[in-house]
Amino acid sequence: MNVSLEFVLKEQKELSTYGGIGALLGWDQMTYMPKQGAQERAEQTALISKLAHEKVIADPFYNAVTKLAKKSVVSTLEEPYQHVVTRLKKDLEKARKVPSSYVEKSARITTMAYQAWEQAREHNQYAHFGPHLSKILELEQEYISFFDIPGPPYNTLLDDYEEGMTVEVLQKEFITLKKELKALVEQITSSRTYEQQKPLQFTMDKLQQQHFCQILIETMGLPKNRTRLDVSTHPFTTSMGNDDVRITTNFDRPNPLFSVFSTIHEAGHALYELGLPKDVYKDTVIGDSPSLGIHESQSRFWENMIARRHTFWQYFYPLMQQHTNHSLQAKSLETWYQGINQVQPSLIRVEADELTYCLHVILRFELEQQMINQEITVNELPEKWNEYMDEYLGVTPKDDVTGVLQDMHWSGGSIGYFPTYAIGSIYASQLYHQLTKKRDDVETLIQQGQFQPIVDWLHTHIHQYGRLYTADALIKKTCGEGLNAQHFLHYLKEKYLPLYEA
Amino acid sequence: MNVSLEFVLKEQKELSTYGGIGALLGWDQMTYMPKQGAQERAEQTALISKLAHEKVIADPFYNAVTKLAKKSVVSTLEEPYQHVVTRLKKDLEKARKVPSSYVEKSARITTMAYQAWEQAREHNQYAHFGPHLSKILELEQEYISFFDIPGPPYNTLLDDYEEGMTVEVLQKEFITLKKELKALVEQITSSRTYEQQKPLQFTMDKLQQQHFCQILIETMGLPKNRTRLDVSTHPFTTSMGNDDVRITTNFDRPNPLFSVFSTIHEAGHALYELGLPKDVYKDTVIGDSPSLGIHESQSRFWENMIARRHTFWQYFYPLMQQHTNHSLQAKSLETWYQGINQVQPSLIRVEADELTYCLHVILRFELEQQMINQEITVNELPEKWNEYMDEYLGVTPKDDVTGVLQDMHWSGGSIGYFPTYAIGSIYASQLYHQLTKKRDDVETLIQQGQFQPIVDWLHTHIHQYGRLYTADALIKKTCGEGLNAQHFLHYLKEKYLPLYEA
Repeated sequence: MNVSLEFVLKEQKELSTYGGIGALLGWDQMTYMPKQGAQERAEQTALISKLAHEKVIADPFYNAVTKLAKKSVVSTLEEPYQHVVTRLKKDLEKARKVPSSYVEKSARITTMAYQAWEQAREHNQYAHFGPHLSKILELEQEYISFFDIPGPPYNTLLDDYEEGMTVEVLQKEFITLKKELKALVEQITSSRTYEQQKPLQFTMDKLQQQHFCQILIETMGLPKNRTRLDVSTHPFTTSMGNDDVRITTNFDRPNPLFSVFSTIHEAGHALYELGLPKDVYKDTVIGDSPSLGIHESQSRFWENMIARRHTFWQYFYPLMQQHTNHSLQAKSLETWYQGINQVQPSLIRVEADELTYCLHVILRFELEQQMINQEITVNELPEKWNEYMDEYLGVTPKDDVTGVLQDMHWSGGSIGYFPTYAIGSIYASQLYHQLTKKRDDVETLIQQGQFQPIVDWLHTHIHQYGRLYTADALIKKTCGEGLNAQHFLHYLKEKYLPLYEA
Repeated sequence: MNVSLEFVLKEQKELSTYGGIGALLGWDQMTYMPKQGAQERAEQTALISKLAHEKVIADPFYNAVTKLAKKSVVSTLEEPYQHVVTRLKKDLEKARKVPSSYVEKSARITTMAYQAWEQAREHNQYAHFGPHLSKILELEQEYISFFDIPGPPYNTLLDDYEEGMTVEVLQKEFITLKKELKALVEQITSSRTYEQQKPLQFTMDKLQQQHFCQILIETMGLPKNRTRLDVSTHPFTTSMGNDDVRITTNFDRPNPLFSVFSTIHEAGHALYELGLPKDVYKDTVIGDSPSLGIHESQSRFWENMIARRHTFWQYFYPLMQQHTNHSLQAKSLETWYQGINQVQPSLIRVEADELTYCLHVILRFELEQQMINQEITVNELPEKWNEYMDEYLGVTPKDDVTGVLQDMHWSGGSIGYFPTYAIGSIYASQLYHQLTKKRDDVETLIQQGQFQPIVDWLHTHIHQYGRLYTADALIKKTCGEGLNAQHFLHYLKEKYLPLYEA
């Protein structure tokens, strides 16, 4: 094998190993670490990050990649390695445009901003956070200046989470989505069913929830010898390696809604991670997801397109009843099904239902652009937030904690991240639509708890490609078109209008 | 601060961080890792070991240490740093005497030997393992040749686990110990009490055992925000850092004996780790234990000297009864006390009682020396093993699994390790003897579940010093004499003869 290629593959392998170690340090911190271990854990995480970063930006690595990427050389490589080298060159060139001094400054500023955000939440006062948000915005402007991505400056930020995605494409979909969702919300909230609806009153104890969630993920196809389900404050998925993918949830609420749907959501992410390319692409830059939107499409596919479906609960509801010592016997499948599909405009994004969720995202997408384009100031932000909430969802935060301070993303310098949540929902519905076009037994499979054919389909069309294609190319290849909110809207109308007739 | 010193401290700090990361990788592997994660975990562990090893043997590090250790320089340092530099120089010089090629060869041979040992156990055939043991012995001979430690070659092996300890000193104590223990065993096994004794019939379910063990360690003084108790096949203690020390046990047996005493044993190790020097010595070569014998003295102090005592169970037995929903109400404290102090000569070291345990160790110590001195061949070993078992304990293994193949130590190249278990028992009794000389309320404290004064005493006399003294110097400082088996024998006689009168 080409000596440079061998070196590049070895370096990538080691980077992947660092990645696994870092993932374990993070997972343990969120699940089992004794509280006082935090200080030493921070040092461990920082050391691994430093070592990995040094490896990524090292000149010998870049030089080897550049040498391999030369037209005359790259064409002599086996095809898979051509993809690796090309992809890697693009990544490294992007990474090398950001000076180390900026990376350090950014780490310092976001650490402070995160603390300020926590304080601001504690005191329920945006004023604590505002000045830090200003600094974050300055950072983002500087970051944008390192690149020459065409179009509005926000495109550069988007590109970090959703490569190649643009304001133009998003705007087009989001304008329709916003208009139609607002209309749907109005129609639903003025129905008699909505007026009479009460919150779902189900309870399961912790152990019952845990057992049932374990059954859920095993039935979905998460193999016990490659996965785990643990408990953390906020649910997440992480990979220590291709054969060690872990998810978390928590059983703090008496109502199982949260643990059940967050477990299914994370299990969707986990199935994707488990299905990422092995063999030649394992531990290379291709063995990853092309974008956050694609990753989120996998979690939302399972959480929403599959697990909020009536047929899904025809299979699982009896099992759930069994696991509550039949205390749910009195409640019907219909009550549960309606309960898990209740529309309820509310203040908090992470608690939003499937239908109103994207309005929370669009609000943030719009405000982020206005901030980056300097159309609104940091001081005007909370008022604008509340104004939009009222306009899109008909609810108004009574304070900053339930308003502009609710998400941590901005405090960490993540601007341009939010849209990927809506992209995930849209892609998920496109994928489900495509699946049902190819197979007419999907509902039957779900009803029978037979998920392997569905996992296989996702594997064949999404998982196995890793980062071989961009998100857009991958969706076009699978669905015959790029981002298109129409399928999502069609799905929502078909499902929710019958639930809220009259 | 001296630039070289600053560099040396920074390097040690980083080594300590690597140590914590390695500990987490190992802990997770033994507790929660999904099975198939093993391959990637091996790569992660190997990478961290490699990075740490490179740092230890790097010339700039050694050069800085050598420079600082020069008489004219070292005297200008603050006292604590004088200790750090002197200790470090000794360690590095020892480490640098072993060529990298040897380290690699040794890793290769022991990996193979471990696999062969597992196979030999599976087939219950020593013949699978014998040839590998020969290679291990050759390795050890080569290892011994790198050093010029005086006395018999076995001293060099001992020195790795118990610095400064010699065959001469051990022999002196072990000869008496063996003679007196054999006599005690004979006396006990020929008593009527022994003839009539039956195994302790107690059962607790897993959750009950777990809750009770949690109470045990909290009462012993393990702080919840710096420690954890988890489950693994073999109990162990590990430190991710000074503020993150974890122990394990398992609740696989219906009888709580195993989980209770292994938890207390590991909690003793953990109290030591938690009490190791902070401030100036933290993350230096001083912030560690001087020897395995000292570490084991801490676990055995709690497991045997404290927790096999009648007063200990006067406090805990009622609590244990509560945690079994009173199903143990029918059994008396006396039955439990006698049960946990039953003498029963048996084949397996790790299952041996407190009194016969050291005979298992002495047998290994003698056979190891005979192998290293080439007085017996690898082929003669199993027969010799069985002969000694019969002679010392009056029992004969019926096969190799319950005989010569029972421990994994030799397969990993650990020869000279076993004696530290007996040293731990002896030191533990010396420490307890010293404690009762200084305080006359020890039994009262134990009876009241007041362990903090005992932890404090251990901290003042052992924990806080870390590696500032050798094991021998530390015990002399605390107890006024070095290794002395008389206290241990006195304790055993005083306790066991009344239990087996007539």
